[in-house]
This record gives sequence, structure tokens and C-alpha cells, in this order.
Amino acid sequence: MPRGPGEYLDSLKDGRVVYYRGKAVNDVTTHPIISVAAKHAADLFGAEDRLYDDPNYGKISRYFKIPRSTNDLIDRHRLIYNDTMRFDGMFNIVQAIGSDALFSLMIIARKVDTKYGTHYLDRVMKYYEYVVKNDLAMAVAQTDVKGDRSKRPHEQPDPDLYVRVVEVRDDGIVVNGAKIHTTQGPVANEIVFLPYRAMVEGDRDYAVAFAVPANAKGVKFIVRPALEYDGNPNAVNARARFEVESLTILDHVFVPWDRVFLFREWEFAGPLAWYFATYHRFTAVSYRAATSNLYLGAALLAARANGIENAPHVRDWIVQMIMYKEIMRMGAITAALEPLIDEGVAVPNPVYTNVSKLYSNAHFVDVVHGLIDIAGGLIATMPSHDDYANPEERQYISKYIRGAVDGDTRYRIMSFVRELASSHLTGYLLTAMIHAEGSEAASKIGMIREYNFKEAEDLVNRVISRLRI
Amino acid sequence: MPRGPGEYLDSLKDGRVVYYRGKAVNDVTTHPIISVAAKHAADLFGAEDRLYDDPNYGKISRYFKIPRSTNDLIDRHRLIYNDTMRFDGMFNIVQAIGSDALFSLMIIARKVDTKYGTHYLDRVMKYYEYVVKNDLAMAVAQTDVKGDRSKRPHEQPDPDLYVRVVEVRDDGIVVNGAKIHTTQGPVANEIVFLPYRAMVEGDRDYAVAFAVPANAKGVKFIVRPALEYDGNPNAVNARARFEVESLTILDHVFVPWDRVFLFREWEFAGPLAWYFATYHRFTAVSYRAATSNLYLGAALLAARANGIENAPHVRDWIVQMIMYKEIMRMGAITAALEPLIDEGVAVPNPVYTNVSKLYSNAHFVDVVHGLIDIAGGLIATMPSHDDYANPEERQYISKYIRGAVDGDTRYRIMSFVRELASSHLTGYLLTAMIHAEGSEAASKIGMIREYNFKEAEDLVNRVISRLRI
Amino acid sequence: MPRGPGEYLDSLKDGRVVYYRGKAVNDVTTHPIISVAAKHAADLFGAEDRLYDDPNYGKISRYFKIPRSTNDLIDRHRLIYNDTMRFDGMFNIVQAIGSDALFSLMIIARKVDTKYGTHYLDRVMKYYEYVVKNDLAMAVAQTDVKGDRSKRPHEQPDPDLYVRVVEVRDDGIVVNGAKIHTTQGPVANEIVFLPYRAMVEGDRDYAVAFAVPANAKGVKFIVRPALEYDGNPNAVNARARFEVESLTILDHVFVPWDRVFLFREWEFAGPLAWYFATYHRFTAVSYRAATSNLYLGAALLAARANGIENAPHVRDWIVQMIMYKEIMRMGAITAALEPLIDEGVAVPNPVYTNVSKLYSNAHFVDVVHGLIDIAGGLIATMPSHDDYANPEERQYISKYIRGAVDGDTRYRIMSFVRELASSHLTGYLLTAMIHAEGSEAASKIGMIREYNFKEAEDLVNRVISRLRI
Amino acid sequence: MPRGPGEYLDSLKDGRVVYYRGKAVNDVTTHPIISVAAKHAADLFGAEDRLYDDPNYGKISRYFKIPRSTNDLIDRHRLIYNDTMRFDGMFNIVQAIGSDALFSLMIIARKVDTKYGTHYLDRVMKYYEYVVKNDLAMAVAQTDVKGDRSKRPHEQPDPDLYVRVVEVRDDGIVVNGAKIHTTQGPVANEIVFLPYRAMVEGDRDYAVAFAVPANAKGVKFIVRPALEYDGNPNAVNARARFEVESLTILDHVFVPWDRVFLFREWEFAGPLAWYFATYHRFTAVSYRAATSNLYLGAALLAARANGIENAPHVRDWIVQMIMYKEIMRMGAITAALEPLIDEGVAVPNPVYTNVSKLYSNAHFVDVVHGLIDIAGGLIATMPSHDDYANPEERQYISKYIRGAVDGDTRYRIMSFVRELASSHLTGYLLTAMIHAEGSEAASKIGMIREYNFKEAEDLVNRVISRLRI
Repeated sequence: MPRGPGEYLDSLKDGRVVYYRGKAVNDVTTHPIISVAAKHAADLFGAEDRLYDDPNYGKISRYFKIPRSTNDLIDRHRLIYNDTMRFDGMFNIVQAIGSDALFSLMIIARKVDTKYGTHYLDRVMKYYEYVVKNDLAMAVAQTDVKGDRSKRPHEQPDPDLYVRVVEVRDDGIVVNGAKIHTTQGPVANEIVFLPYRAMVEGDRDYAVAFAVPANAKGVKFIVRPALEYDGNPNAVNARARFEVESLTILDHVFVPWDRVFLFREWEFAGPLAWYFATYHRFTAVSYRAATSNLYLGAALLAARANGIENAPHVRDWIVQMIMYKEIMRMGAITAALEPLIDEGVAVPNPVYTNVSKLYSNAHFVDVVHGLIDIAGGLIATMPSHDDYANPEERQYISKYIRGAVDGDTRYRIMSFVRELASSHLTGYLLTAMIHAEGSEAASKIGMIREYNFKEAEDLVNRVISRLRI
Repeated sequence: MPRGPGEYLDSLKDGRVVYYRGKAVNDVTTHPIISVAAKHAADLFGAEDRLYDDPNYGKISRYFKIPRSTNDLIDRHRLIYNDTMRFDGMFNIVQAIGSDALFSLMIIARKVDTKYGTHYLDRVMKYYEYVVKNDLAMAVAQTDVKGDRSKRPHEQPDPDLYVRVVEVRDDGIVVNGAKIHTTQGPVANEIVFLPYRAMVEGDRDYAVAFAVPANAKGVKFIVRPALEYDGNPNAVNARARFEVESLTILDHVFVPWDRVFLFREWEFAGPLAWYFATYHRFTAVSYRAATSNLYLGAALLAARANGIENAPHVRDWIVQMIMYKEIMRMGAITAALEPLIDEGVAVPNPVYTNVSKLYSNAHFVDVVHGLIDIAGGLIATMPSHDDYANPEERQYISKYIRGAVDGDTRYRIMSFVRELASSHLTGYLLTAMIHAEGSEAASKIGMIREYNFKEAEDLVNRVISRLRI
Repeated sequence: MPRGPGEYLDSLKDGRVVYYRGKAVNDVTTHPIISVAAKHAADLFGAEDRLYDDPNYGKISRYFKIPRSTNDLIDRHRLIYNDTMRFDGMFNIVQAIGSDALFSLMIIARKVDTKYGTHYLDRVMKYYEYVVKNDLAMAVAQTDVKGDRSKRPHEQPDPDLYVRVVEVRDDGIVVNGAKIHTTQGPVANEIVFLPYRAMVEGDRDYAVAFAVPANAKGVKFIVRPALEYDGNPNAVNARARFEVESLTILDHVFVPWDRVFLFREWEFAGPLAWYFATYHRFTAVSYRAATSNLYLGAALLAARANGIENAPHVRDWIVQMIMYKEIMRMGAITAALEPLIDEGVAVPNPVYTNVSKLYSNAHFVDVVHGLIDIAGGLIATMPSHDDYANPEERQYISKYIRGAVDGDTRYRIMSFVRELASSHLTGYLLTAMIHAEGSEAASKIGMIREYNFKEAEDLVNRVISRLRI
Repeated sequence: MPRGPGEYLDSLKDGRVVYYRGKAVNDVTTHPIISVAAKHAADLFGAEDRLYDDPNYGKISRYFKIPRSTNDLIDRHRLIYNDTMRFDGMFNIVQAIGSDALFSLMIIARKVDTKYGTHYLDRVMKYYEYVVKNDLAMAVAQTDVKGDRSKRPHEQPDPDLYVRVVEVRDDGIVVNGAKIHTTQGPVANEIVFLPYRAMVEGDRDYAVAFAVPANAKGVKFIVRPALEYDGNPNAVNARARFEVESLTILDHVFVPWDRVFLFREWEFAGPLAWYFATYHRFTAVSYRAATSNLYLGAALLAARANGIENAPHVRDWIVQMIMYKEIMRMGAITAALEPLIDEGVAVPNPVYTNVSKLYSNAHFVDVVHGLIDIAGGLIATMPSHDDYANPEERQYISKYIRGAVDGDTRYRIMSFVRELASSHLTGYLLTAMIHAEGSEAASKIGMIREYNFKEAEDLVNRVISRLRI
């Protein structure tokens, strides 16, 4: 049954173990900081038109529609782009990422079943049915803490540095370890755990995929400090919109068999990670294109407020911002137009997905650079909102902060530009844009791995074969 | 009637006035240099599957199919990409550019007719019928010589620095002036002249579009020196494949009325230039994506020949080359997917077209840089083909030029890399990639002009409107 | 008399008007935030070897040594670099910027005196003597609030948008207006006001330079919120080291004649701004080279902690960071080696100063990008210091955060990397590095203005003159 | 005895074995192509002020002055810069590179002698005396052909892919192999052979340094085709100025002991290569700064000719060109200011040398890009000199090529811009600027190898040690 925001928020009061800044959080829906992330997620459940009529499952969230075609992928791109716009430029992940994981699991489960005669696909589809019918909020925990990057999982000095099976029981498995960067885990209903990387046989205990509810015994979330809002009375958009990441601990957590989706089939760990990454980077370029509108729009307003709208260097930065946004959109659309169809499921074209994802990782710094250059040093040195609220000071600030627009307007614009380009959020987003959904190195590998070099090599071989020497 | 290569070549023996390196050229089909460009064009008339069955005009060249839809534009993109691959990575322009001009004229003619009750569309369609039925090779002369760039056409010290009407007669007009950068004019049947820029009323005599045969009285072509082949015995691909540009002189040339497509309607000069630019940049990113395969393929072969295929910096350059090629393809495909439909004709989306065109202008230097870095200094200092042919020297060269492959193979590969990255062709292509079909500045203008900034501004206005200060 | 830290701090309790986050600050030396900036400045007064024996003024601060030669400039570069290193990579401005201003005033005062028979140099030298003998802390207020950037001072809608003379009295002048970006004004003893830009005759009331004590009647400081520490319990270096900027209001402030250094000689406003900018950019590249060590050192430690020290992309980023640091040092040293000697004072070579300053503005984003890429997404999502302090959580965090080094060590390193690359400080420093001491546009103008193009033009003219055509 | 140009040219008629385009060259001083390179070198012997009075050797070339101090290195930088300017922006290598090698040999010879009690330094100093007293022209052959880059010298499939000792005799050694990229070898008197890389014990037969006259038995030069002039009637500067590289074959060449400077002391191969590289990169940034004036000057003239001198994008490119030139100069000057003094000889600071060299390798493409962008597509499509010489065509060309300057002037300027940015020379220089005197990778290694990271690490360790967690 589709849920509303209230039902979703109520479902989070389930005894989950969450820490924030060194303190246990009793109720994430009332905690001064985490509740903002919870309410942001809740808004997703209140969005218009968010459901569609599925022939098998009835009215369910559009996020869970299994893509079978170009059109399905285009719709998914638009859904993510439009929802990010709807929620003020900030991504709202709690059904997008879960479906990214489920689609990948559907493909891999079928492949494992084919090879080993297992029945993973049944488990995946039952779990999928449970999720879509109950309209759940999901998080995906993929990135292991990884220890020494130069060593494989089973070579680490501490065996728990990648999540692993520590006990096999009749009714399921017991897992131990930790995942980092889990987005919105503390406000999700279900957490899906996927392997992070390709593995070798020695890593087989690490080749495991499964799902647990957020309040499962032994699951603990240590939430990052959300300083874009917490401690920052100058927050603008971050007053209402952010998501939280956590270090997600699995302290000897039991998983029943029907929620285990990969178990020691080590050669499928890499493919599963790769399919998920491909879906999730498609999601990434879709939401990032929308998020970049915050920078583009702020740059336009700031340029106008400063009276430099037509300055050539301003136009050059605006062009860079358009490039940034549109290369991501071009990537998403083209990835949808030329999908892989694997096990009956449409996967976004990995080359176009990774080309645009890499562009997005590499060039966000330019977007920030441009906005700072346009706005001026004011965004680092301007008075706080409290100063502006003090009438004694406001008479001066309002008078002296005017530009080609009046003081109040310019103050308002610059307050938001400060948040985007000269605040904790800036540092957070820079890091996220460079690393989230895979670093630049990861996008390069993804791109080269699937690239058809033959066309180019054949051409050159043909040309040089004609050379008489 | 569709023509074959022989018929096309014969048609060029028509008394046209062509100069090459200070000498008049009697017959372009036998001239040692220009004939290479002519034969390259002739190959287009011998290409398989080059025709389609048009309901109105019968079997005609696919290049002339008027785009009405996304699918037509996608087909056009593929046609240009595939033909460029077919012709060894070198664009073959003689029907592509003419159709770019004709489609633009169809749109503008209808607009002028609507405003002024003129009958330009009839003329354009009759001319179109003449061209397609006779399967003609075409050139487009658009870039005026321009004199002082800071002055408008009518402000120039010499009134002929933009092509203009110098006499109006009962049966037509007389035009004077010169156009630069006309590609393949000396081996085309017809030359279409389009205005280069937006104009003001004072420029009305310059607001003129028309077509003349290449052998019209008063038309003279001064061809650029094709040093990528001429004087270069080390040419590889350029031995068979290049196109020539010319300075195209109009020395008091008469144009009958039925070939005049714009005449003093100065406010349409800009739009006509802009529509043509949009079509032609779509053409550009389509052929350039194919041409870039020469660099990508050569980089792969060179890396392998040097034994450095897996070196990280090599992979980084390969990634840059993939980005270069695929962002152009993404741009073309997305431009086709979201076209403007104007006067019933599908125009490639100008934003995506210009985004990818700008990327292509700005980053070709990186492609060359990468190929040079991978290949090594050898491409500047290696012995000539004549040295390799001299057995006394060859024993040494072949022995010492070996890499991770044998000497002959590496010599062959490096000969072609030299042509691509360390020769006259390099200089020529760098210039072409930066300026042809519009400079970076032109792409930026094209992009900003059509961009919908409202979405981003509305978003930011909404966010900041919530700020209480 | 040279002062110690205590005497300096005591001197700040003088009734100055300072606001922080909407509240008046009684005593800047005890205010929880501003006192950090005050103590940072105080440390300068406790530094070893900070004095030298001047033949005219006795034991005075090295910062005030008037540069007469290459060696003096080299010493000044080293003083600034070394002090920035001494103070943990953070610039300590309170005598550097004041001396930058005084040296510029010495040059310009002499020029004005020569032209007009005035006696500004006497005033400047008397003020200089007062400053050096009393070992004062100084701020310079140069950047006007500027209103609409497309208008000159006297064309602004509000006449106070550049600081101006509003009354001329027998004993001095009354000034009104505001300056933005005044660094350490609230903890300085003296504030020097300089014109921001070149002026025309209509701007003559804006062509004014003068000095006032920080507690002068009508002077008010509105301090920026220092969120790098304030509200951020994860601060590392910012716990002890930062400087504050303010919006500095002049509400009808009286300045006696002996502290007026330029008065309506409008044609000298530009030169004065330019000399100060040149000195101050020399200061900038000197301290920035030191500050960049924080990023370089953190990158090295983070790479080692992650076990990726020898990864090629890591080495590439390290190379970028070395380039960043050393191009600034090269610029400072070369600027000292080829100074202008003007009115007997050595001015750093403006070309080398601006070349290195521009590099520093344009490439700081790359330094941040590199550190983020090396460190990983952890810096955005890692638990807070409070979490680490909670033993219940620490057992997990310490276990799971280990890399190629133990958990405590990696946590410590990554805490500081978070501050540098993923925090409010990141946003602040990005803005400062792009705009402080002049934006990229300003550096370009400074570079072109003084460049000797003749050498290059003569060479090319000579070469082409030989061409026979 | 110092020689004049005539004596130098005469000395080249010595029976040396030289091939050009597959043919043996009897006399390099009369060969239509190689003679241009010879005359360019001859000009060095006719330069004013080229000698200085050495206390030990009398009047000798300034190039051979052994650097002992900062001042000596500054003088050497200026000598190379000024001579490159004197010779129209083209480097004149024949005494610069030889002295780079000799200085390196002096340092290493002493080190080897100290370790092994050998007498290499005597040999080096005797050879040096011979060279300076006879005022010889020299080439250095360092780059081995290298075969498979992933293998060491002794692991190559063919043992001759690095130059090696094949026989040891009483009176000397016999060497075999080949070197690539030897600049001006065919017009030098002496060729010095240096090892290319660090070696291991198995490579000992490859650890060899020696000198032979250019006409030694078994030495053969296969010269690259100089297409910047050969076959290019549009050459401007290349009509008189270029240098030639060769593949230099050693076919069982005998070297007497007094010309053997390293022999199987394999652990010194790397240091010798490294010292030579450091000297030679210092030479490189010195001449390249001068060469870059061609681009800067051409850009200025072209911008003016086009009437776009003050366009913002033009100014941005000019700024890039200034940065390019001045960062090299800053590097050279700073490298001189902080030299290593090793065995009594001053070595340019390797960090500053490599920082500026890397900048120079990486950014030459931007200089070319800028010049092309400023000049316009004309440089690719403009008529040839022969066209301009034909009066029938010239009337049109001269009329239509005018810009903000008259036709003849603009034609002249654009002819040279074509050579710089759209010709064979462009491809050649791009390759040279990226690879000559060491590739980007080589500069990175050189920079990191000598870098003092301790300062930065100590700083960060100090900061984080204060963190209480």
C-alpha cells in the first residue's frame, strides 16, 4: 500500500540504533538535525503523481518500475531530475537507490541461478514485492571501509574491513563488518548490502549480498555531523534540505536465507557491483543535472545583482555551467537511448553513463570556481543573518550591500551564494561530487571496460595497411 | 538522375576558373593535387546505399532527405558519421553542406514569404528539385572576408568586404565580393552563397542569398596550398583523402532572380546564418566524432607498439579521447531527440548541438596532445619513407625502430601518427577543429542564445524567497 | 617601543565598536570567537627574532623595514613565508598589510608633493614613525562596497557607495562610507583607508587616503561569522588560527589633516591603489606558498594513510601541489630580483608578482580537488569528534577507520583533511584564494599593464620583414 | 682558437656519413636542406660578444664557461635566451648542449674517481680543453631507441636497442647501437654519447659515456625530413632557421680510452643522465622562453590586424602566453638563485628547473590554441605565396585579405602565423615542446625526486598532534 509522509515518518520509530555527535538518538523524526533529513525523505511520499499502475503490483512508486526499454529509462531519468527540482535541487534518494540495487540484483540473481541452479531470483523478486507493496524507504550500503587500499579483502590485517560472513546457520547467515557513506540509512526502512568490488576465490566469505531492516539487531548508524545546517544559523536551503550519511556497523547481524542474494559466488561480486554502479551513476547524472541548476541560477542572479551580467568572463562561466548541466543530461538521455538489455532488464548504456559521470566529477570544481568568481569576495566576509536582523546594524548593511539591485535583494541572493560556494555545504558538495557514486578513477574504469575500441582500431589498421614502405 | 563517380568527375570539366599555387588549373580532375580532392568527392557518388526512395523526387541521395522528425535527424547523423568512417575518417562534404543550406533556406524562405508576400519558397524548392534530381555536388560560401572585425558590412573601408548587390536588373542581380573558407568549391557543381551575420538596415545590400554554378562568369577559386600532401612524400592518409578550401571571388557575377533566395530583407540575414550554422554544426559533430577515431585508434596502436598500453597516463589520454568522441555523439543524438520543428522542418536542438560543438572546438588540442605524449618524440625525428625504402638505411632503421612490435609494424604506425600529430596536417586540423563551422565564441553565442535559463532562475528564486531576514 | 603579546591585547580594550552575529562585542580579547583572531595576532608580538635594528628608528619590527633593494624584498618574502609556517600555515596580517600600505604611500606622497608642492610625505613619514615606534597592529581598508559595478563612484545611486569626503574643516576632513573585506580590523590598532580604483575628476571627493585609530568615533566593525570554528566542534587548526574580516563602517568620521595622505588629487588614486596592490600581492604569494604546505602535507599523509602513496594519480596531484607552491615562490623571488626602484623604494616586479598571483588564484581549486581525490569520500561522511570520544562508538570507529595506518592515526589525519577540503573553511579559503588581494581579472590587468610587449613584437616584425611576397 | 662561420662550415666537409630522404649527402654545407641548419649553426660563430676571457683557457665561447655560482648560471640563462632572440626565436644548440654534457661529466667523473680511484676527470678535462680551444660544435646523443619500454636494456629482444660496449681492446672500446633525436649531429664536430637511464648491474655493458668525432668510422646520421621548409614554398622563418635531428647509428665504432668517460660503472649511469637532464632542462626553459616570443608577438600583430586587439578573449590568450613565457623565466632565474653546488660546479636547482619545464611541456598546446583562436581560420585556407605573386590573383587577394590593416601587411602577418600555428612546423614544435629535453613524465619524476617534502609534512604533523580526540 502506498504510504503518505506521516506513515513513513511513523515507521522510523522502530528502535533503530542511531548516533549523532556522540549521543544516541531516540527518535530520528524529532531529533533537531536528523529530522530535517527525515522530513526531506517524507516529502517524497507526498509528491504528486508519484505512483503508477503496475500490471503485477498495482499502484506503486514510479521508482520501482523495472526498466525494460529506452522509454522506461528516459522516464526514470526524468523522474529523478524532476523530483530533484521539486525538492529544491537536492536529491531525494530513498527509493532511487534501492531500486538501483534491486534491478542489479535481478540481473545477477538470474545469472547465478543459471550457473549454479540456485534460486536467488525468487528471493530477489519476493523481496522486491515486499518492498514495493509496502512502499518502503531504502538505503544501500555498498562501500566497505576497505582498510589498506593496496590489499584485497582477505589480505587485510583485520578480517572485518570488508563485510563478511562469520557464521552459517540453518536459517541464515551472520555477518560482521562496516560500510561507510550509507546515505539516508538512519531514515530508511530497509538497508541493502552489496559487495563493493571484484573478488577472488580467497575473498569468498566477502562475496555476499543481503538486506536487513534498519532496526535489525546489531545494526548501528553513526551519522556524520551535518554542519551545513547544524551550528550554522546562516543556512538557507540546508535549513530544510539535506540527506545524512552514516558509518553503518554490522555487529554480528543475523540475515535469514530469504534475504541473502549472493553467498560466496565470488565471481559475481564484481559484476553485481558493476551493474549497481551503472544504474546508480545513471541516477547520479540525472539528479546532478538538476542540482547544478542551483549554481546556474545563483550565478545568473548574482551577476545581475552585481551589474556584471554581460561581462565576458561572466558569460564564459555561464557557458561552463550550461556545459556541466547539459553534458550530464546528454549522457543520461543517450544512455537510455542505447541501453544494454540484460536478462530482460534495460541497463543504461555504460559508456555514455560513465562519460557524463566522469565529466560531472571532474568539473564540479569549475562550477564552484565560476560562482565564486562572479559573486565576489563578499560571500566570505558578509555579515550574518543575525547582524541583518539587528536594526542598528541593518541600516548600514542594507545601505552598503546594494548593488545593481537593492540591499535586501542582494543580501538575500548573496546569502544563498555563500551557502553554495563559501560554506560547509561547499566543502561537503565538492567531496560528494568528486566521490559519490564512484570516483573519477571508477568512472574511467567503467568507461574503458565497456568501450568498443574495435571501430577505431579497424579504421587505423585499414589506413596504414595501404602505406607502401 | 543519380550519378556515378565518373559522371560527377566529368561534370567538373566546365571551364571553371581555379588557381593553385599561382597557376590557373585547366582541369581539376587531372591536376596532381586538386584531383585528389575531386576523387575523394567522387567516392561519395560510388558509395553503396547512398540513395533512398523519396515519395516526391524518386531515388535521390540520402543527404537531401528533408528532416521532419527525430528519426530523420538520427539517420542524418549516422549517414554523416558512417560516410566519414567509410572514407577513412575524412569528412566528405559535397552533399552534406549543400543540404544544410537548403534546409535553412526552406525555413527562412517561408518566413520571409509570410512577412512580405514574396515567393522565395517556390524558388528554393525549384532549386532544391534541380539539385536533387541532378544529384549535384555543392559547396556553401558563407564566411565573408570581413575586413576590420570591429565594423559592420556597410562601415568597412572597402564596400566589397562582405558580398553585396552592386546592380539590380530586370532579370536578376549582380553581386560582388569574396568569401573565404569555401570547402570543395573547386570540385562542386553549385555554390550557394549565404549571409555570414546579423545585419542592420544600413547593411541591406549585403543581405543576400543566392546560388550560382561553379563555372559562372566572374567566379574564381583561389585554392589553399594542400601541403598535407603537396610536397610531403610522407603523406599516408592524405595521399588519398583531403578536401580543399578556397578564397572564392565574385567579380561582378550575374544571378538570375530564380536563384536569389534573400534580397535586402536584412532582418532575416541573421536568422538564415543561424539556422545554417545549427544544421552545419550538427553535421560537424557527426563527422568529427568519426574523424576522432583516427586519433583514438592511432593512440591505441602506438601505445601497444611502445609497450606502454597499460601505463596510467596512457589510459588517462585514452579516456580523454573517448570523452572527445562520445560527447560529440551524445550531442548529436540528443539534438536529434529534442529538435525544433520550424516551418515543418526538423532543426537539431541548438543547445545540445552547440554544447557538443564547443567541446569539440575546445578539446581537440588535448586529443593531439595525448597522441603526441603516447607516441613519443620519434614522430618528429623519424626517418622519411625514402630512407626506409633505401635498403642500406632500412637495415638500420628497421632494426632500431622496433618496439614491443617489429620494426616494420612500428614504422608503419608511427608514420601515420606523424601525419596525425606532427605534420602539416596537424596544423591544418588544429585550425579547422578550432574554427570550422564556427569558432568557440560562435558556439558560446549559439548556446546562450537559445538557452532556457528560466528553470534554474525559478528554482533559485523559490529557494531564496523562503529566507527570512 | 616593541610590544609583547600582552601589551598588544591590552591595547585592544579601547572602546572600539564591534559587532558579531548581531551583538555588540564589549571586549574583543575575551569574546569566544574574536579572541581567537586576537590571540593569533598576539602571537606575532611574541615571535622570536621579529625585530631588527634600524639606523633611524631603533629596534623595530622587521615588517616595517622599508625595502630599498633586492635583498630587502627577499628578506620580506622570507619573513612572511616563515611567519606563516610558524603560525601553522595561517597568514598573520597585522603588520604585513600596514607596511604594504605605508610603502605605497611613501612613493605616491612624494609624487604628489612633486607635482603640487604639498607635504604629504612628511605626514606619511611622521605617521610611519608613530606606527613603528609604538609597534602597532594595523589593518588596511581598501575595497569599497562598490554598489553597481558598471558605474563610477560619483555615478552611483547612493553617493556613499565609495568612501568620500563629506565635509572639509580647518582641522581636518569628515569622511563617510564603508569598506568591505577589512582583515583583522577589529583587532588592529590603526586602520589605513586607501582608494580602491582609478578615478576621474568627477570622483575627486572619493580620491582620499587617510588613517584612523580603530576606536575613532563613528568607526564600526561588523565581523563575518567565523563558522570555520564557531559552531564547528570538529575544528582542528581553526580552533586556534584564523583571522576575521569585517564590513567597516565610517559614519561621519573626523580625520585630522596630519592623517590625511591623499585629498582630491584624483589622478593619484589609481597609482596608489596599484602600488598597494603590487606590494600586497607580493605578500600574498609569499604567505600562500606557506599555506599551501597544509594541503601538500595533508595530501602526503592522507595518501600514506590510505596505502596509495605511489598510485600514479596521487603522484600527479602531488606534482600539481608542488607546482602551486613553487610557482608562487618563484614569482616572489623573481619579483624581488628584478624590482622597480621608485622614489628610492623597491617595489616587487609587477609582472612576476601578478603572474604568480594569477596562478595562485586560478589553481587553488585544483589543490582542493587533488586533496579530496586522494583522501576519499570519508572526509564528508566520517563521524564527529564527539562520536570518537564516546567509548561505545569509538571501539567501532577506531577499528573500521584504520587504513595502512592504525585507526587513531588515520582519524586524526582525516579530521584535518576534512577541515581543509570538506568544511566551512574549504568554502572560505576557496573564496579567499580566488578573490583576496585581487581577483583573477585584477591580476590580468596588473600583468598586462606593465608588460613589455616590445621585445616580442620587434622579433616578429623583424622575421616577417624578410618575407618577400 | 675561436672560429668564424666560414671555418666552422669548412670543418664539416670531413667525410661524415649523412643520409637525407634516402640519399647520401656529400657535403652538408651545400645540401639544399641541411645547409640551412648548418648556416644557422654557423651564425653562432659570427655572433658579437660570444667570447669571454677565461683565466685558464683564454678567449673561449661563453657557452663553455663552467658555472660556479648563481651569477654564472644567470649569465648562462641570459646567453641562451638572448642568442635565441638573436637567431629569430630559434634555439641554436651546438655549444649549449655540449657544455650541458661536459658539466655533468665533470661532476660524475669526480664522483666515480673518488669511489673507484679511476681518472675519468682528467680525461673529461682534457677533452673539455680540446673542445674549448678548438671552439667546436657539438651534439649530444642520449636517447636510446629503447625498443620495448617495459624492459631494461639487457632484457630487450635485440641487445643493441641501447648503445653498448661490444668489444674491449687495449686501446679502447668498440660500441654498437643507435640513438634517436640527436639534434644537429650532422652539422656538429663532436658527438658526446651519454646513457639514457638508471641501470642495474645486468646493464653494465650499457653504462657507457664517450665522445667521437662526427666523421668517426661507423657513425651514420639519418636525418629527419625537414618538411617545415623542404617542399613548403610558404616557409617564412623556416626558410633560414631550423635545426635537424637524426637517428644516429653506431655501427661497431671504436672509441680510444681517453674519450671514454664512463665504462661499466652502472650505478653512475642514472646520476649522469639526471645531471645532464637538469642542465639541459635549464637550457630548455631559457631558449623556450625566447621562442615563445614568436607566438606572443604574432598573437599581438594578428589581433591588431584583425581589429580585435581589445577583445576580452584575446586578452585572456595574451595573458596565457605571458604566463607561459614568464613562468619559464621565473624558473630559470630561481634555479640559478638556489643552485646545487656539487663537486665545485653549480647545478641549476632541479625543483625550479623541472617545475618550469613541466609547465612548458604541458602548456605549449594552449599557446598554439590561443594563436589559432586569435588569427582565425584564414591561416588554414589562405592562398599561397605563389598566388600572391601572380598579379592576376594578387589584385583580389590583396583587396580581400585586408583587415584593420592593409592587405599586404595582413598577408605578411598571417603568412607567419600560418607557419607558427597551422603548418608542418606547428606539428613539429608541438612534438618538440612536449618531448624534447624530457617528457612531462620525466619532469614529474625529476621534480618529485629532489623535492623536500619534510617542511610540509612537519607542519601538518605539528597541527594534527594538537588534536585531542
